Amino acid sequence: MKHIDNFRSIIDRYQVVFFDAFGVLKNYKGLVPGIEKTFRYLEEQGKEYYIVTNDASRSPAQLAESYHRNGLDIIDPERIVSSGMLAKEYLDLKVKDGIVAFMGTPESAHYIENERWQTLSIAEINSTNIDKVNAVVFMDDEGFDWFEDINKTVNILRKRTIPAIVANTDYAYPLSVNDVSVAIGSIANMVENIVGKEFIRFGKPDSQMFMFAYDLIRDRRPINKKEIVMVGDTLFTDIIGGNKFGLDTVLVLSGNTLAEDAEANIHSTGIVPTYICESAVINEGELDF
Amino acid sequence: MKHIDNFRSIIDRYQVVFFDAFGVLKNYKGLVPGIEKTFRYLEEQGKEYYIVTNDASRSPAQLAESYHRNGLDIIDPERIVSSGMLAKEYLDLKVKDGIVAFMGTPESAHYIENERWQTLSIAEINSTNIDKVNAVVFMDDEGFDWFEDINKTVNILRKRTIPAIVANTDYAYPLSVNDVSVAIGSIANMVENIVGKEFIRFGKPDSQMFMFAYDLIRDRRPINKKEIVMVGDTLFTDIIGGNKFGLDTVLVLSGNTLAEDAEANIHSTGIVPTYICESAVINEGELDF
Amino acid sequence: MKHIDNFRSIIDRYQVVFFDAFGVLKNYKGLVPGIEKTFRYLEEQGKEYYIVTNDASRSPAQLAESYHRNGLDIIDPERIVSSGMLAKEYLDLKVKDGIVAFMGTPESAHYIENERWQTLSIAEINSTNIDKVNAVVFMDDEGFDWFEDINKTVNILRKRTIPAIVANTDYAYPLSVNDVSVAIGSIANMVENIVGKEFIRFGKPDSQMFMFAYDLIRDRRPINKKEIVMVGDTLFTDIIGGNKFGLDTVLVLSGNTLAEDAEANIHSTGIVPTYICESAVINEGELDF
Amino acid sequence: MKHIDNFRSIIDRYQVVFFDAFGVLKNYKGLVPGIEKTFRYLEEQGKEYYIVTNDASRSPAQLAESYHRNGLDIIDPERIVSSGMLAKEYLDLKVKDGIVAFMGTPESAHYIENERWQTLSIAEINSTNIDKVNAVVFMDDEGFDWFEDINKTVNILRKRTIPAIVANTDYAYPLSVNDVSVAIGSIANMVENIVGKEFIRFGKPDSQMFMFAYDLIRDRRPINKKEIVMVGDTLFTDIIGGNKFGLDTVLVLSGNTLAEDAEANIHSTGIVPTYICESAVINEGELDF
Repeated sequence: MKHIDNFRSIIDRYQVVFFDAFGVLKNYKGLVPGIEKTFRYLEEQGKEYYIVTNDASRSPAQLAESYHRNGLDIIDPERIVSSGMLAKEYLDLKVKDGIVAFMGTPESAHYIENERWQTLSIAEINSTNIDKVNAVVFMDDEGFDWFEDINKTVNILRKRTIPAIVANTDYAYPLSVNDVSVAIGSIANMVENIVGKEFIRFGKPDSQMFMFAYDLIRDRRPINKKEIVMVGDTLFTDIIGGNKFGLDTVLVLSGNTLAEDAEANIHSTGIVPTYICESAVINEGELDF
Repeated sequence: MKHIDNFRSIIDRYQVVFFDAFGVLKNYKGLVPGIEKTFRYLEEQGKEYYIVTNDASRSPAQLAESYHRNGLDIIDPERIVSSGMLAKEYLDLKVKDGIVAFMGTPESAHYIENERWQTLSIAEINSTNIDKVNAVVFMDDEGFDWFEDINKTVNILRKRTIPAIVANTDYAYPLSVNDVSVAIGSIANMVENIVGKEFIRFGKPDSQMFMFAYDLIRDRRPINKKEIVMVGDTLFTDIIGGNKFGLDTVLVLSGNTLAEDAEANIHSTGIVPTYICESAVINEGELDF
Repeated sequence: MKHIDNFRSIIDRYQVVFFDAFGVLKNYKGLVPGIEKTFRYLEEQGKEYYIVTNDASRSPAQLAESYHRNGLDIIDPERIVSSGMLAKEYLDLKVKDGIVAFMGTPESAHYIENERWQTLSIAEINSTNIDKVNAVVFMDDEGFDWFEDINKTVNILRKRTIPAIVANTDYAYPLSVNDVSVAIGSIANMVENIVGKEFIRFGKPDSQMFMFAYDLIRDRRPINKKEIVMVGDTLFTDIIGGNKFGLDTVLVLSGNTLAEDAEANIHSTGIVPTYICESAVINEGELDF
Repeated sequence: MKHIDNFRSIIDRYQVVFFDAFGVLKNYKGLVPGIEKTFRYLEEQGKEYYIVTNDASRSPAQLAESYHRNGLDIIDPERIVSSGMLAKEYLDLKVKDGIVAFMGTPESAHYIENERWQTLSIAEINSTNIDKVNAVVFMDDEGFDWFEDINKTVNILRKRTIPAIVANTDYAYPLSVNDVSVAIGSIANMVENIVGKEFIRFGKPDSQMFMFAYDLIRDRRPINKKEIVMVGDTLFTDIIGGNKFGLDTVLVLSGNTLAEDAEANIHSTGIVPTYICESAVINEGELDF
């Protein structure tokens, strides 16, 4: 096994820490035990953090609230950057009026609401309003009838020459220690192959996610990419995306990448993190020193 | 537009005609009008025919019955070769016992029943019997709850190292003049991408479909590939598959390939049929002479 | 055919114009005739421009010089943003020492030189120095022996766990009215499939290209994405990339997209430009008014 | 590690053995030591064998001669089935006259010669004869100038609507214990992506290879798929192809699949051989009994 680095000594070397959410801060059981100590340490040391996530199922306010409910009340919704926010920014710039149709829960729809257009679930589209649909957005895998609404989405996109936007590019997400659930990114890929059009995707590993968080910092103060470290559990999204944007990266072994596979996965993919750590948790012992 | 050939004069040059079903003999409205004249002519001339189809939703007997109900009572179930039959042959050779789990209607399951194993719908698999599942078969897009059963299939295939068999490789099929429906082939591709395993596919353009029909003839009499012509409406399945197996091919313009696009599609794909015809229907005028 | 817009009236509405190079400003014969009038107009009106190109074969200084030699002496090398510059930025942040090996001409290598490391052609790598190679960069399709050096690159990347960087993601480029040439992006894809590792790509349609140009402006003055328009001839790089970054886009018909195919291509891909123009040339008549 | 089976006791259960060549009978150093004992045993026991290979670089006569030179003089050229033979069969049925252009060595061209057409190397095609080219065949990675002739092939296939045939679908082949060489299958994939046409591929895992060998047996005597076992070193070609055709399969660990990776590879791909053996060599000890 490759050398395991000490997470605390790593973050001591940077001004800003970007965290992936799932597999780093939380998992299917709730918060990663002890993760609150990391955020307390960041606060004490005056370090900045951002949570950079492909989860577009809920708004930053709702995501923050769920951290609070689980005991991590330090999380500020303004520090959460999700792929849903990029989808929203795109719609604001590109859609003038009409209808934005979405696949997902009503919560996910909050992301893409705007007074200029109507935000309707795919189930609400029919022959009387299909001509007003100016974009389709894939937000979340729940909140719709798969058989009815996936088929309907295919036919809307065959008839209308409009952008299709994917706000979460993940293939699947963990549901329990053994089970996963199909994510909306997989459904979007299936629909794209059938209709033969080019969808627009937002989410890691695409640099636009990192740029969005980077700009939030730059809006307030000067910053250099060398002062930021990205912490994630997935080579194909967090690590390659962080690397490509020019950030140092930490692979943590508390999620998708198992300790026994880490070295082999890094070798076989060629995606090399700057550091490897057990998790993003700072141990008591470390804090004492 | 490229030269349009006369369908009757083409079949006069061959001993055996292979037909694709959808877009050639029937469409979403029922039988292609006049197609019975073609089969009457084949019978008069002592030509053999086979229907070579990726439709695994019903057994050959049920498929033949549906032709009969629509007025084409000449169709013999023994002349129907479907990708479901190849899936069945594979299971017979490879599965000894236990459970074969399927996605599809109860009708589609008839294909894969065998006294050696239990044939169960994905919905019937649970923690008490998952260890006995020795194969998963993707048969048809109907007959199951998409959300529940697609997710369940993903998790069965992550846990069990067993073959996953795709009995219909089509992406979508026409439902009306304007609408299509997602086919089980698309669902299988999505699941394959998530679980990262290699599925086994049966269906055109794969040569095994043509070989199966070819062997049915050879079992009774000598035959040469030059005596067979394949008639289909889709360049990517019927024409490239027929070409590759070494058959002459007819592209008909009564289905997936529109008359106005035929030449451009042939040029851009490089998939060149031997002939192009309006349809597989022999006109009255032609029959009179 | 869709409505054709007037290029001059479009640029009147924006503060900054991003141009693709090949198919917009120049083609295989040299400069697009009349393109100097567009740059004169931009100068008179006080508009800013950037040339955003996937061409990493030469440095911005060399690219500017080639515009000058052809009579477009207005082009400032500081206004040229190429994918080679992003590759360079990546190396600066990620490679500390050792060797950076490249495929391409000696000119293309200037991009990636740095006093911290040695920049060597693939041909110069052998058993004595392979262990010092810390990155491989695909720059250009010329300047090396394809058989020897592609095979050598495959084996270097199988032995070393290091980043492989693709500085030009194009598949092919036009050589004459009828002929194309294989671009380094295609060679990189072939090598990636063989070695099974994940390469890092820079170039349109990736947003990082647009962000780089956008940051050059922001470093000097405030700017809003609504004040910028992207002009390109290729739906799959210029238009989808510009759209995704949130810019308005102009498809010009002087390059990859032919006038007779434009509408069909837009419909079939779902990639919709804000405007369509014959070319990026402003006619005399337009200038007189 | 999964149970390792005894190769001799396996072949005792079958009438016919299909062998892959590279990694099973020979490797980059020459014959697999001891393999002659296996063929002596097959002869003594009156078992039939076929060598089923994706190697189209030389004719069966030349391939047999190379086994003889290395001391395995038992090999009969009539027992060698290569993907080049399928390419030849296809051309015989589909090309009437003109030119068949090929990439490969002069030896590989022997496969595809026929008195009806001229067989010319890509290098020999020019503006005076390009209009007579009726097929392009990818045979072997040697015998041509990669830069000149790959670029020329791209442009021939853009101009002519003709079939492109790939006679070896492998990505790479071993050159020494550490090094591989790019195979013609990879070059064909690169050209296909650039020209956007659909190539016709022959070779494992496609069933047509197995069918060809199966038909050679059937031409002489009745045979059942249950009497044949396929022996190979590669899950993605030999094992999945043999499985799909309905044969029992043996994975040997003397080639592409390393002993330490076999179980993990089988689990992660879902491609399950019927048996696993160290190699296709029958040990002295085994022969004594």
